[in-house]
Amino acid sequence: MDQEPDQAYDGFWHAGARLREETLPTLQTHRTGRLGPVLFAVHRFDKAHVVMLTEEGLIPREDGIAILRSFREMEREGVERARFESEGGKHSGETYLIRRLGKEVGGRIHLGRSSADLAAVGRRMVIRDDLISVVREIGLLRRAIAVRAREHVETVMPGYTHGQHAQPTTFAHWLAMWLCVFERDAERMLQLLARVNRSPAGAAVLTGSEFPLNRSRVANLLGFADILPNTMDAVHSHDAELETFSTVMVHAANLARLSEDVMTWCAAEYGLLELPDRFCGTSSILAQKKNPHLPQAIRGIAASAVGGLMAATYIDKDPTGQAILERHGADETLWGLFASLCGQLPVVRDMMESVEVHRERMFELSGAFWGQATDVAGALVREEGLAWRIAHQIVGALVRISLERRVVPTALTPDVVDEAAIEVLGRPVHLPADALREAVDPRAFVRRRKLPGGPAPEAVLAALASLEVRMESDEAALATVLSQVREGDRLLEEAVDQLLSP
Amino acid sequence: MDQEPDQAYDGFWHAGARLREETLPTLQTHRTGRLGPVLFAVHRFDKAHVVMLTEEGLIPREDGIAILRSFREMEREGVERARFESEGGKHSGETYLIRRLGKEVGGRIHLGRSSADLAAVGRRMVIRDDLISVVREIGLLRRAIAVRAREHVETVMPGYTHGQHAQPTTFAHWLAMWLCVFERDAERMLQLLARVNRSPAGAAVLTGSEFPLNRSRVANLLGFADILPNTMDAVHSHDAELETFSTVMVHAANLARLSEDVMTWCAAEYGLLELPDRFCGTSSILAQKKNPHLPQAIRGIAASAVGGLMAATYIDKDPTGQAILERHGADETLWGLFASLCGQLPVVRDMMESVEVHRERMFELSGAFWGQATDVAGALVREEGLAWRIAHQIVGALVRISLERRVVPTALTPDVVDEAAIEVLGRPVHLPADALREAVDPRAFVRRRKLPGGPAPEAVLAALASLEVRMESDEAALATVLSQVREGDRLLEEAVDQLLSP
Amino acid sequence: MDQEPDQAYDGFWHAGARLREETLPTLQTHRTGRLGPVLFAVHRFDKAHVVMLTEEGLIPREDGIAILRSFREMEREGVERARFESEGGKHSGETYLIRRLGKEVGGRIHLGRSSADLAAVGRRMVIRDDLISVVREIGLLRRAIAVRAREHVETVMPGYTHGQHAQPTTFAHWLAMWLCVFERDAERMLQLLARVNRSPAGAAVLTGSEFPLNRSRVANLLGFADILPNTMDAVHSHDAELETFSTVMVHAANLARLSEDVMTWCAAEYGLLELPDRFCGTSSILAQKKNPHLPQAIRGIAASAVGGLMAATYIDKDPTGQAILERHGADETLWGLFASLCGQLPVVRDMMESVEVHRERMFELSGAFWGQATDVAGALVREEGLAWRIAHQIVGALVRISLERRVVPTALTPDVVDEAAIEVLGRPVHLPADALREAVDPRAFVRRRKLPGGPAPEAVLAALASLEVRMESDEAALATVLSQVREGDRLLEEAVDQLLSP
Amino acid sequence: MDQEPDQAYDGFWHAGARLREETLPTLQTHRTGRLGPVLFAVHRFDKAHVVMLTEEGLIPREDGIAILRSFREMEREGVERARFESEGGKHSGETYLIRRLGKEVGGRIHLGRSSADLAAVGRRMVIRDDLISVVREIGLLRRAIAVRAREHVETVMPGYTHGQHAQPTTFAHWLAMWLCVFERDAERMLQLLARVNRSPAGAAVLTGSEFPLNRSRVANLLGFADILPNTMDAVHSHDAELETFSTVMVHAANLARLSEDVMTWCAAEYGLLELPDRFCGTSSILAQKKNPHLPQAIRGIAASAVGGLMAATYIDKDPTGQAILERHGADETLWGLFASLCGQLPVVRDMMESVEVHRERMFELSGAFWGQATDVAGALVREEGLAWRIAHQIVGALVRISLERRVVPTALTPDVVDEAAIEVLGRPVHLPADALREAVDPRAFVRRRKLPGGPAPEAVLAALASLEVRMESDEAALATVLSQVREGDRLLEEAVDQLLSP
Repeated sequence: MDQEPDQAYDGFWHAGARLREETLPTLQTHRTGRLGPVLFAVHRFDKAHVVMLTEEGLIPREDGIAILRSFREMEREGVERARFESEGGKHSGETYLIRRLGKEVGGRIHLGRSSADLAAVGRRMVIRDDLISVVREIGLLRRAIAVRAREHVETVMPGYTHGQHAQPTTFAHWLAMWLCVFERDAERMLQLLARVNRSPAGAAVLTGSEFPLNRSRVANLLGFADILPNTMDAVHSHDAELETFSTVMVHAANLARLSEDVMTWCAAEYGLLELPDRFCGTSSILAQKKNPHLPQAIRGIAASAVGGLMAATYIDKDPTGQAILERHGADETLWGLFASLCGQLPVVRDMMESVEVHRERMFELSGAFWGQATDVAGALVREEGLAWRIAHQIVGALVRISLERRVVPTALTPDVVDEAAIEVLGRPVHLPADALREAVDPRAFVRRRKLPGGPAPEAVLAALASLEVRMESDEAALATVLSQVREGDRLLEEAVDQLLSP
Repeated sequence: MDQEPDQAYDGFWHAGARLREETLPTLQTHRTGRLGPVLFAVHRFDKAHVVMLTEEGLIPREDGIAILRSFREMEREGVERARFESEGGKHSGETYLIRRLGKEVGGRIHLGRSSADLAAVGRRMVIRDDLISVVREIGLLRRAIAVRAREHVETVMPGYTHGQHAQPTTFAHWLAMWLCVFERDAERMLQLLARVNRSPAGAAVLTGSEFPLNRSRVANLLGFADILPNTMDAVHSHDAELETFSTVMVHAANLARLSEDVMTWCAAEYGLLELPDRFCGTSSILAQKKNPHLPQAIRGIAASAVGGLMAATYIDKDPTGQAILERHGADETLWGLFASLCGQLPVVRDMMESVEVHRERMFELSGAFWGQATDVAGALVREEGLAWRIAHQIVGALVRISLERRVVPTALTPDVVDEAAIEVLGRPVHLPADALREAVDPRAFVRRRKLPGGPAPEAVLAALASLEVRMESDEAALATVLSQVREGDRLLEEAVDQLLSP
Repeated sequence: MDQEPDQAYDGFWHAGARLREETLPTLQTHRTGRLGPVLFAVHRFDKAHVVMLTEEGLIPREDGIAILRSFREMEREGVERARFESEGGKHSGETYLIRRLGKEVGGRIHLGRSSADLAAVGRRMVIRDDLISVVREIGLLRRAIAVRAREHVETVMPGYTHGQHAQPTTFAHWLAMWLCVFERDAERMLQLLARVNRSPAGAAVLTGSEFPLNRSRVANLLGFADILPNTMDAVHSHDAELETFSTVMVHAANLARLSEDVMTWCAAEYGLLELPDRFCGTSSILAQKKNPHLPQAIRGIAASAVGGLMAATYIDKDPTGQAILERHGADETLWGLFASLCGQLPVVRDMMESVEVHRERMFELSGAFWGQATDVAGALVREEGLAWRIAHQIVGALVRISLERRVVPTALTPDVVDEAAIEVLGRPVHLPADALREAVDPRAFVRRRKLPGGPAPEAVLAALASLEVRMESDEAALATVLSQVREGDRLLEEAVDQLLSP
Repeated sequence: MDQEPDQAYDGFWHAGARLREETLPTLQTHRTGRLGPVLFAVHRFDKAHVVMLTEEGLIPREDGIAILRSFREMEREGVERARFESEGGKHSGETYLIRRLGKEVGGRIHLGRSSADLAAVGRRMVIRDDLISVVREIGLLRRAIAVRAREHVETVMPGYTHGQHAQPTTFAHWLAMWLCVFERDAERMLQLLARVNRSPAGAAVLTGSEFPLNRSRVANLLGFADILPNTMDAVHSHDAELETFSTVMVHAANLARLSEDVMTWCAAEYGLLELPDRFCGTSSILAQKKNPHLPQAIRGIAASAVGGLMAATYIDKDPTGQAILERHGADETLWGLFASLCGQLPVVRDMMESVEVHRERMFELSGAFWGQATDVAGALVREEGLAWRIAHQIVGALVRISLERRVVPTALTPDVVDEAAIEVLGRPVHLPADALREAVDPRAFVRRRKLPGGPAPEAVLAALASLEVRMESDEAALATVLSQVREGDRLLEEAVDQLLSP
């Protein structure tokens, strides 16, 4: 067929055929929709679709070859620029082809497709690729935290509840908590990835096509694990996006909590941690300032995730298939979120590796505000056989009395214990002085916490060992997905090569 | 030990030991915290904890026995009332025991625990049990939809996008979409269940205990699959709740979309569906009214889920361990959401089973608003070898001309096609009249949609068959979890029996 | 007319007339809708409507009298119980009347009304009354803060930005900020009150009535300032509720920030404030604990407000008049929010009046972490004529050097300044020692901050004086609204008396 | 003083003075903060601040003149580009000056300021200017709707509740509702404007300055109505932004409801409205499609507003002054929202002016689905003296019977009424045939709705007249604010001229 370029062509959406007026500029979403990373996904879908149409004989072989050759040229020119100059939207491939090959050839590419499956394929490929990146970064973060944790199994620090001193623990114990948190984040993302990594291609606008497209072939060429089994669901259900927003939000909220801890402990009054200067900035007026920028940047990502999730939820409240243009706005927010996460996760890792830990200050605070009180009660139970509640009330009185008299924990003596015991129980308890000394020692406190999951060094080391086993298995799972995606790439280029070979 | 009742006891939180003033009534969360279903979970934890303390020799055997005997009596009286009269909160077990057995015996129950692990255990048990109920209801709903879908594989109806007629499809195709949606909802919940179904018991307030509690034993007695491997994480990480809210929200949003479809199609102008009267209500002024109540009730649940998720997210923005009391408010919202879902899911199932389908009206609308246009273009591709874009533009012009002349699709003749072809292409295309007739027939349109996932009857039936395989495997997975939970119950009662046996 | 009781009557919504099946129990919103405070508003509307119908001759005078007499009896019995026993919803008045007077008399009450204006009138009356209560409480809080501020104009404390020490300020300056915040909250609420305080009565379901109701008379009897000028708007626009949620949310978020400040400063590491014990609670395990309950309760209210706003927003995304039942859920949340606010605002006031201020600790921290650095730079500008940026960079270097050498601010000497000056500027600056001493003195720092709005005692006192003028004018504005509302009450009872008088 | 350029200067934030390491690129918010419209506000603040510093003698007069002369040159070059090349952030003015005039002159500009008041001034100026634009656009929209309403006072259409036919109304009545809604939106924005339009300048970072800045002078030069009376409040309270987000969100949600109505009525099944093609787009596959783009674009704005509000709320949950960097993200979202609103409001106005109204279809549907039923009951009350509830139940039965027999409203005869009456009341009611005919006539139905606020033509015309009075007064109020802002501009240029004049 004669290939006559149609340089004037700029999209099917212009007035003339179906409409009498041009769509107003602010409403030209086919052209102005900011695709971001979707552009590259659409490019791959364009190629895979044409390969399949050609292989299945749904378009003339020579037209298929001409189209694929054009796409290879486009790649040499630079896909982003070429598509941007070809109206820039999801249909930039068609515009590019028609301008070079004319409508009779270039106009064949869209057979059996619609904007809906273009959008759905692009969305799922980008979510998939971004999830892979984020899970990899989370994996590296987990490794870095584990290394740090091993260094700090003896670093005693205060643990807080309600913003008040609760009990001594260790820095490693706190770090191990984050390993658990990020393990769950990775697990959620891998499970979501399995739900997302399925191909909507061939679903067209909602019923698929009357033409015998090969949906599985396209799915393979795009590295998807399978096809989605209902064409209406494939393009009009929103739960995959809502789940993606939710999962990203939960991860970002976890990072935000980590940031809250770091910011709190970097405050002068705490002085437990100090961030290297590169994570901070100074002030235009306060010459002394070293402001913790990174934690604020992270909390800002969490805020965007919360906002993005709400916007997406609001959008999706409509009958099936009604909200379509609005969803592009949600997509844009999502790509921005992924970009922010992928940009800052390595910085978070750097921070976790390099934050200065003020061990002496940690230890000093561990024992200064009665966080050891639990074990004074414990000693009364163990040594004196008291019921917990009685021991607990004695220690409550003891702390009240001590605070009123400004007695600090290390200066506590058995007679104050007895004074409290008399108040509560009506009799002294004669707790031995060495039992009392041992009870109020924060290091001993931590060493006694040997239960599975507790802060005693051996308990933390045991926990780390099993957390590391899981890091490995997650890394393996991710590698499997990634290799399937790459295999899709390879198959696609191979198929194009084969069709283009003489 | 002498068991002397202490009838006056009402909680460790009263002024005297640690504090000088009573907590103000509006702030007495230990007493006023509305536990709802958590009460029963706490009751079981109380028993399991005492069994373990006794078995491990951490409290005198006779005290353990006295306590367990009291709990059995409490069960005879009625747990809810007895605990309500014993201050009503998480510590109602202790209050009950101390009032009956005195502090020296009853005061032993709390050894190695804190309000934090009481809350965390209760929360996870309730989430677990509620998820089990919801997944079961979703399973029954899927079964009911599948039955209905088999009845409607030939029921042609219009499919919509952007609120406008898109293409004919079938009622079964729409129903099969929901099977895919609810399959994912169930999958998410089962995966969440596996993350939630792990025991925080023994984590105490954040470091576990200095006493050698047997965390695994308690986990088993409570039917948990495992223990949580970091005690700080076990009680202070929030991601499990945020994920629960998110997962419930996504499911509720899916149900809300279903409700939007149903409400739209029940509107007089559509007339596609009619709800039996029991799902509706009338008006105090509009005597003709039959208002669809159920869809509104469902959308109301989705709204609460959205609000609950946001509130929980807002609460959780704080350093580790700081927001504790606020989380009880989030819990309450969550229990309410689960109760609403469990209450309405059977009603939704009833609706899906019994909604009247107006087949004739569905068919009438399928062909009335040019939803078949895609296949006129398809016919031009197939019959005339035109490129898709050219055929598409011809049909665009054809529809415009027809609307201007008020020609309806069934009255379309080849010469209007040619008129449009001349306008777009500069020449007529001579589409045969029978090809045109076949192209605009909604039933034929649907029959041609045989791709995997499409609405052709055979495609839908094939999809249903594989969706049903998955229903079975989900039912099996749920049964496994459930039997483990029940085995926990059994083990607990057995252990109590054994300790109480002479 | 013969008044024959119809004891069996329980609502127009039962199957028989329009419907063939009973509405399912979970969907019987007419009966089960939890009205809360709306019940009393509906009661007043019932009476006002009947007064108007009777006065206008729209129902027989003797029927009107019989109805009003019944309502007076209901009031003697107790409105809440009587209505609860009469089906309990918005139509409980009608049910009560029909059961006592029969349908022929009691059935006259609903002429010209619908559930829609019952709901809208109830909603606006409750919002109005709750706003009045909240604005009054905010007014009392402002007064209490102003008193406290006058006591603390000399109490120097650190000011923070980015969680780090920024500059010294005073406790009174911080308190005066809250006066500005709460002034705006009150202003917003008074403006909202003016928008809300307009009567939807007579709008019926959306078009008003064919009967010549006197809308203004009913508005007056209910204490509204005016009628709403479009009947569709009156019952179907949602912006008043959304604005109410937003305004409450903004106020609650302000209170939450106040709570964050208080919680932070109550942390042992800060030790700036101490809450009296009655705002706190202790722990079941941590015998030393005095947990700040009030700030957490406040933040919980903010979380509910955020969630409620989002739920309401989600609900309202629908065509006009579609979401009706869902809105009752939003109402319930709103009443709960108002109740929580009204319950805790007096407690917040008590806290602001009684929180212990640790002046010495505040002063100690003010000077300890280089918050005075700005004024060292200022001194260089003033004394040496340096450009600000040069002075600022010298002080930056000076602080860095001092921190590295562990020189504290009070130990700073002119030669360190010169060392920094040489580093930055290439030459010493010879700042006089007394200028340096004055620059680093936190008390002097604050005294120098005399600009309008600054923390110098005279600036704060001037600000307080003008803030108090505004307190008075707000109190007057509130009193005006309140007296109008009460005048409505009076008019209503007077009108009933007149009709019932022989 | 010698003015020596310092071309290498690029910001005070670089390592050297206070910090040892450069801030990481992803955290360099001083430089990378995307200011958008804030840039121009900061430029004006830079000028006004220097004018004031010079006038007050706080910097050498010749330095002030040199700086202002440089700014005039910058304006000739183009402010945006010049500032972009000078590091691009809030401190681009200082960077520009130092590069041209050296630190000894250019470094004087920041005396008495901080990034905090730069941000706060910029934020408030932009919000002010954007609110002015939006209120003006809303005013034009109100005018356009009023014109359209006058054309359609006789255009009878169906009114809906619960998505079902409720009662006949008119298109003008629906339009008048929107006038009420947008009047409240404008009112809210004007009230917010008064709260926002106050100057934070001179508040510096939180305590103002030790230098005797003239805050009022700067406020005047920037067109603010007054200064903010507490410097900590001026820069660290967030409620103004939260209220701005809320107010924009409520307006956008109102526009979204309007969009929902329009989309619903443009559906083929309704066919009440048709959008001109320029508000629509077609499909790449569905050749027949004319998709309503504008309503979706509007709903997308509402979604962004909802998301932005939530993100801002999440950000603001922190102690005073802690979340600073995050707020820039919220600002960006807000500027985007304002830009979208300002871009689409004229398009909405165009739509309201030009949407085709299908009067016949509106009339046809008005009478087809028993929306008139209320007035059959009304006729029974009026003609037969029945109590409302009895009449209502008779009509309920009548509609049920008619639907079962497929009797349409216009075919209703008195004997069906009697059949229903016998069923409900036990006797016929003999409603005259002409009373019945009049009752079921939708035109007559509307004509009878003459109550204030009702849809009868005279009632709507009366409402329009008073709504237009309010449009005028809002236009006047806006003009007053605008002229004050412009007077600030004039004063500023005049002051610069005066200082620069020889």
